[in-house]
Amino acid sequence: MRARLARLIQHPWFDRTILTLIVINAICLALETDASVMERYGPLLHALDKAILAVFVLEIGARLIVDFRGFWRDPWRIFDFCIVAIALIPATGSLSALRAFRILRVLRLVSSVPAMRRVVGGLLSALPGMGSIVLLLGLVFFVFSVISTKLFAQAFPDWFGSLSASAYTLFQIMTLESWSMGIVRPVMEVYPYAWMLFVPFIIMTAFTVLNLFIGVIVDAMQSEHEAAARAERDAMMSENELILQEIRALRAEVQEMRAGR
Amino acid sequence: MRARLARLIQHPWFDRTILTLIVINAICLALETDASVMERYGPLLHALDKAILAVFVLEIGARLIVDFRGFWRDPWRIFDFCIVAIALIPATGSLSALRAFRILRVLRLVSSVPAMRRVVGGLLSALPGMGSIVLLLGLVFFVFSVISTKLFAQAFPDWFGSLSASAYTLFQIMTLESWSMGIVRPVMEVYPYAWMLFVPFIIMTAFTVLNLFIGVIVDAMQSEHEAAARAERDAMMSENELILQEIRALRAEVQEMRAGR
Amino acid sequence: MRARLARLIQHPWFDRTILTLIVINAICLALETDASVMERYGPLLHALDKAILAVFVLEIGARLIVDFRGFWRDPWRIFDFCIVAIALIPATGSLSALRAFRILRVLRLVSSVPAMRRVVGGLLSALPGMGSIVLLLGLVFFVFSVISTKLFAQAFPDWFGSLSASAYTLFQIMTLESWSMGIVRPVMEVYPYAWMLFVPFIIMTAFTVLNLFIGVIVDAMQSEHEAAARAERDAMMSENELILQEIRALRAEVQEMRAGR
Amino acid sequence: MRARLARLIQHPWFDRTILTLIVINAICLALETDASVMERYGPLLHALDKAILAVFVLEIGARLIVDFRGFWRDPWRIFDFCIVAIALIPATGSLSALRAFRILRVLRLVSSVPAMRRVVGGLLSALPGMGSIVLLLGLVFFVFSVISTKLFAQAFPDWFGSLSASAYTLFQIMTLESWSMGIVRPVMEVYPYAWMLFVPFIIMTAFTVLNLFIGVIVDAMQSEHEAAARAERDAMMSENELILQEIRALRAEVQEMRAGR
Repeated sequence: MRARLARLIQHPWFDRTILTLIVINAICLALETDASVMERYGPLLHALDKAILAVFVLEIGARLIVDFRGFWRDPWRIFDFCIVAIALIPATGSLSALRAFRILRVLRLVSSVPAMRRVVGGLLSALPGMGSIVLLLGLVFFVFSVISTKLFAQAFPDWFGSLSASAYTLFQIMTLESWSMGIVRPVMEVYPYAWMLFVPFIIMTAFTVLNLFIGVIVDAMQSEHEAAARAERDAMMSENELILQEIRALRAEVQEMRAGR
Repeated sequence: MRARLARLIQHPWFDRTILTLIVINAICLALETDASVMERYGPLLHALDKAILAVFVLEIGARLIVDFRGFWRDPWRIFDFCIVAIALIPATGSLSALRAFRILRVLRLVSSVPAMRRVVGGLLSALPGMGSIVLLLGLVFFVFSVISTKLFAQAFPDWFGSLSASAYTLFQIMTLESWSMGIVRPVMEVYPYAWMLFVPFIIMTAFTVLNLFIGVIVDAMQSEHEAAARAERDAMMSENELILQEIRALRAEVQEMRAGR
Repeated sequence: MRARLARLIQHPWFDRTILTLIVINAICLALETDASVMERYGPLLHALDKAILAVFVLEIGARLIVDFRGFWRDPWRIFDFCIVAIALIPATGSLSALRAFRILRVLRLVSSVPAMRRVVGGLLSALPGMGSIVLLLGLVFFVFSVISTKLFAQAFPDWFGSLSASAYTLFQIMTLESWSMGIVRPVMEVYPYAWMLFVPFIIMTAFTVLNLFIGVIVDAMQSEHEAAARAERDAMMSENELILQEIRALRAEVQEMRAGR
Repeated sequence: MRARLARLIQHPWFDRTILTLIVINAICLALETDASVMERYGPLLHALDKAILAVFVLEIGARLIVDFRGFWRDPWRIFDFCIVAIALIPATGSLSALRAFRILRVLRLVSSVPAMRRVVGGLLSALPGMGSIVLLLGLVFFVFSVISTKLFAQAFPDWFGSLSASAYTLFQIMTLESWSMGIVRPVMEVYPYAWMLFVPFIIMTAFTVLNLFIGVIVDAMQSEHEAAARAERDAMMSENELILQEIRALRAEVQEMRAGR
């Protein structure tokens, strides 16, 4: 039975069917946001959604049966598993918001289409190199959050009332959204020297984020460049190799000539 | 008659006349936006506009007669055709807004001036490489639009009332315009955890758009670099070729010497 | 007398004195913005300003006497001349605002300090390569200004009342400042499809400006790269030259050997 | 005793203990921002903070005793010293705000973790190359601050009342935050030509900051590139060296052959 399942899964029509179901599912979930559509076709859409979910569960079950170990080694399969698992959590009471996240199933498109997989893989491959700068940025956020909470919590509880509120406000300031008219000018009316905290924060984070980006750019270009340089060097080397062979053959000939004397 | 038309079209004065008419037309349409000018010279400007449009129609007709197939193969000619065709649609009733788009005719400047054509061609050539990341961005927008519509449609119908309203609001958030003070803070007053949706959205889109840009930069630099590297390698190869020829000539000489014995 | 003037101008102390006067002048003009300082030292500051201006006029006069033709060939000298000339325009009536522009004299620092001259020269050298894209951007602005004036002038005279008002508003939209909450959302309440004009405008200008920047980056890197590549190739060539010489010497020897037989 | 202190400091457990204390101290200071935690554990947290501070003072004292000169030569040690010294200033009266800056002690993480040290070192190494452009930017800010103070101080004292207020407002305009709806449009209602000052300012600073960034990118890429190019050239050279040796050996052989005649 496992062999038959394996043959079913590897059949070219299997992937196409799953892909089609993902797209149909996405359309259903998008239509569910429209009130007038829901009034008419609500039950139909829900039934369709449940049916497709059932197919997905069966598909993942089949994959697990065919190759249990291989499944857990492929990060894309684990991704599929988690996305389908979210939909199985009973979305009642305080978890009802989870129903909205069923649309995440459309992200199975990414794991199913190789071109998309490659793009996402490319994006994720840039992350490890960003690690230490992201840590530094986290440290800067932590320090400024603590300082601004200590200084401004009493006067501006909405913006700096707690560590997390301060962190959110600082994130807003980092994106430069209403940082001056919305936040710093009102703060400066109470604490005239507040700009001495926020202007350096803006310059520091801008400079750090810039360097984060430069790191990604330099990395991307370097790997491109290295591939090109290696190809070039190989071509060169083979040329040099040819010259060397010729010279050695020549030398052998001269030596033979001398020996032949 | 076709031969005479062809001679007329290829005459150097023909292009210059068309170019001058485009510029005059642009000035007319710009002047039409001024109420006091319109009061005095309104009918004159309209007449001039119609006359120039007539010349454009005749020009395109002539080009079609001279080389019907060639016309439809040149994307710039099709561009010209569409721009002039827009002006011929009777702009009455609900289509009256189309009158404002007559100014698009000034874009014929782009198709008529080779330098501009090259710049636009350069910009467009960057697009295909962006395809898969734009698709990914579209997917992210779709997923977040559905989620935010489901979650916030009832409380904030103006911003998240429908899929398209959510997509527009998310585009605004992506450009960082009033994302916090204008949208997310008010939403957080009703749903305190809304930031868990929007802050990751901002970081994800910023990172994706950044990678889109990096792709374009790397592409641009790579093509520059490749041309330089090829030139360099060619110079090198010819040098190596010279060395190889010398060695082979030498070897032939040595062999002759041995044979001459 | 001209020779004496030339010696005076070329004296190392001359430049230093002028530089010091520029800095003192800058401090004076900065102090003039302070009301309490003006009350006390107003007349002194004005007198000092006039005295320094007189020195500058004399300096430029001396330079003109010493080398009239050379003066007009050096763009930095013409820059100095214009800046000092502005200060000599009688700033009365409608031109009184010109008094504020006397501070431009501090820009003489740029023309006097070689390091600053080089930086500004570097910045300006990037401009010619930007020409055709800036032209294209101008065309896009023109087209969108005319369209938005035609469509929205009546409903929103403050933002789109005239061509120049529209151009200013579009510049604001291009910088993404309050584009949605401030401009497009109010417009969309009257014209629900306004986003079909403004969202493409934002994407187009962002993409064009990005390409403008990429052009500058690629140019900067290319010139760096070319210099490096040339140095590398030269080193390589000389190596190959050495090999070639050796081989030719060897061949000559072999030929001599054959001839010696 | 100095030798025993040196052995203590160099012990691997010493650094780990200090690192742990830094982290604990950071957590304490973060908890101090929470009112409900402070009510319960306030005295405990203060005591812990003081105890850790004491350990830090002893640690730095020990380091000073062990190697007084070396301490002042290592910029990271001086950094540690300053951070701990801030905490020792009696934070009373007008200096009570300094208490908030005790959190800066968490920055000792940067000086203690080599990976972080390298990242910060990398960021700082980009600064010297930015010097002259930052100076130019400062000059532009100074000139525009003086001009806008002179022109708009009376009508808009909040934004342009003094040189420093103008500089802050111009910084806000440079970051594009509410520049138009918040500042320039209100100013234009009084001075309709104000855009002639601010739009060029925005374009100039955007272009200058862009060039600042490009300089950093080009620098980063150049150093990467140079290292790669050097490695490549070395590989090439050694190949060429091999060829040259072969040829010379061959030539020696031929010469011997001739001499052997």
